[in-house]
Amino acid sequence: MHFSCPRETLHQGLQTVQKAVSTKTTLPILTGILLEAGENRLRLLATDLELGIECFIPVQTKQEGAIVLEGRYLTEIIRRLPEEEVEVTVDEEKKMAEIRCAKSVFRVHAMPAEDFPSLPENEGDLLLRIELPVFRQMVKETSFAVALDDTRPFLTGVLLELAENVVRMVATDTSRLALRQIAAGETYQPVQALVPTKALLEASRQVSSAEEEEVEITLGRKNITFEMDGVKIVSRLIEGQFPSYQQVIPKQSQTKVQAQRLPFLQAAERASLLGREGTSVVKMQISGDRMILSANVPEVGQAHEEVAIAKEGDDLEIAFNARFLIDVLRTLEAPEVLLELTGVHSPGLVKPVSEEDYTYVIMPVMVR
Amino acid sequence: MHFSCPRETLHQGLQTVQKAVSTKTTLPILTGILLEAGENRLRLLATDLELGIECFIPVQTKQEGAIVLEGRYLTEIIRRLPEEEVEVTVDEEKKMAEIRCAKSVFRVHAMPAEDFPSLPENEGDLLLRIELPVFRQMVKETSFAVALDDTRPFLTGVLLELAENVVRMVATDTSRLALRQIAAGETYQPVQALVPTKALLEASRQVSSAEEEEVEITLGRKNITFEMDGVKIVSRLIEGQFPSYQQVIPKQSQTKVQAQRLPFLQAAERASLLGREGTSVVKMQISGDRMILSANVPEVGQAHEEVAIAKEGDDLEIAFNARFLIDVLRTLEAPEVLLELTGVHSPGLVKPVSEEDYTYVIMPVMVR
Repeated sequence: MHFSCPRETLHQGLQTVQKAVSTKTTLPILTGILLEAGENRLRLLATDLELGIECFIPVQTKQEGAIVLEGRYLTEIIRRLPEEEVEVTVDEEKKMAEIRCAKSVFRVHAMPAEDFPSLPENEGDLLLRIELPVFRQMVKETSFAVALDDTRPFLTGVLLELAENVVRMVATDTSRLALRQIAAGETYQPVQALVPTKALLEASRQVSSAEEEEVEITLGRKNITFEMDGVKIVSRLIEGQFPSYQQVIPKQSQTKVQAQRLPFLQAAERASLLGREGTSVVKMQISGDRMILSANVPEVGQAHEEVAIAKEGDDLEIAFNARFLIDVLRTLEAPEVLLELTGVHSPGLVKPVSEEDYTYVIMPVMVR
Repeated sequence: MHFSCPRETLHQGLQTVQKAVSTKTTLPILTGILLEAGENRLRLLATDLELGIECFIPVQTKQEGAIVLEGRYLTEIIRRLPEEEVEVTVDEEKKMAEIRCAKSVFRVHAMPAEDFPSLPENEGDLLLRIELPVFRQMVKETSFAVALDDTRPFLTGVLLELAENVVRMVATDTSRLALRQIAAGETYQPVQALVPTKALLEASRQVSSAEEEEVEITLGRKNITFEMDGVKIVSRLIEGQFPSYQQVIPKQSQTKVQAQRLPFLQAAERASLLGREGTSVVKMQISGDRMILSANVPEVGQAHEEVAIAKEGDDLEIAFNARFLIDVLRTLEAPEVLLELTGVHSPGLVKPVSEEDYTYVIMPVMVR
């Protein structure tokens, strides 16, 4: 096997697949990246058996072949080489690869390509095509709400759902829930897939150089595939039943509060300062044209913040975990947000003003 | 106690002293910052008993007084407040401080100023005055060579030495040694002080707004004080005997190699990639007009790099810990460096070309 290409091209390819390289060494071959030189192009593949990423880069192939090289070293070497042509020559028999660039020569041990697991075939059907920027936004606005502990694996992923004429992503850790849907141009058969968050984040991180940035999503029985511009990301689906989330979304409210997002966010961030990261509770007193955010941490002190609001409905005192409020206010980009509440014990709802397709539900906490 | 000032002024003052706030809670008062409001100025002081930093900021004092506030919360609160006037009111009796800014109000518990340790008096004499940029360079070019483990405390600091008409800083971990000296305009009494690296780094990090940026260094029996533009940094000296370093500096050499610093650095960085961070060994084959850097890590592979050189004297093969070579090549700014060597077992010397006042000594390692 023998090919050459500009350093930058190979570097980009390695960057693309690198996130799927396994960091555990229980199966050493998975710490490698498969390089397969075909006619004028090199296939790069990495997988940790949960997630697989494949891409193709243009190279000059002098001799076809395939090999697996340790991902960590390969990526570091290529990253630090000068901006010139890189030449890779592999002796498959001796399992040695030679990497040359300018006055640098690296000889590194290689692993046989036959031992590398192949990506699962796209056994499923094309689920949908979606513009990359829209896909990115959907992932960004939901994925932060997944559960981080893996005691309940079905909460660590994002539900991807097609329902008649909407595409929807939903994530919840049972204390809060984020839902983003978009109207689709066509009518779908209802279908649900529980996708690992890492796969969605990787797919949304891809940069397409194509004019029409689109992601093609294919759903199989056990796998989901994201394809865009020569990059293919295959992930196992999470097994288990996602909670039936529709019933936790409040349908009406007794108090509607409209506020500017940034001052609200900053007030919430400051009010949460005195408590421990992630567990700070912020009390909100909604009355007239202002909302008072306060926090009381007996051993430290008290914080008191005021936010100007426009209110409809009843006055209310309610308390939330500050982290859950801050997360959504940081993620949204709308200048104004709407808070819909129904009494002190019912879930609250946060959404951008004049935006029906995003819903964030947050459970209140009890305070004295 | 009652004062007010722009948020930014207070923020800068807190940033200045913050590094001396203790993070250990064995003596809770040390996790605080002393605020002492005098006529038109506020004194800020933090200390962990090893290092103390004091500064003054202009404020409007409505009522004089002193209090200690928890450093972590105070700094975070002030950092996040809007860019407006901050008003601090302290009830010394009730040990409560109120911080107001725009629509934010924080009430935090306070500690009594009487309990806060005072900085040691400048019992010593003025040692020297030195321009801040020169001082910074001396610290930067030596401090990286100190020992990081504290089994030998006297190697964790930098030796500050006055000798006749030079000011010198020296650091060593016994495998390498960095020495920077500057010619002084006057003749000094010989004196040595072993200064904790943290104190030097803090002092060199200070930004002076004064026209003449100068550091005034005062040496006492047990403490050293750095003063500049309203900021005072006091540190305990390290006890113990610094190694007599002069004898390890080679006085002559059999091989002189001149190389461009950046290509040499990059070659050394790449050659060290395959080994474990900090323990990579790079072999150097010096012959004719080139130097070959190579590394061999049996379980990973080999690296081979070439650097163009101008050589005087004997050809040589010698090996160094790559980290020690990389550290100095990253720290220096000169475009070209000189490597002076005497055989495979003798310490090597690195210095900028045409610069007699910087010396870096590095012990070779044995390779087969």
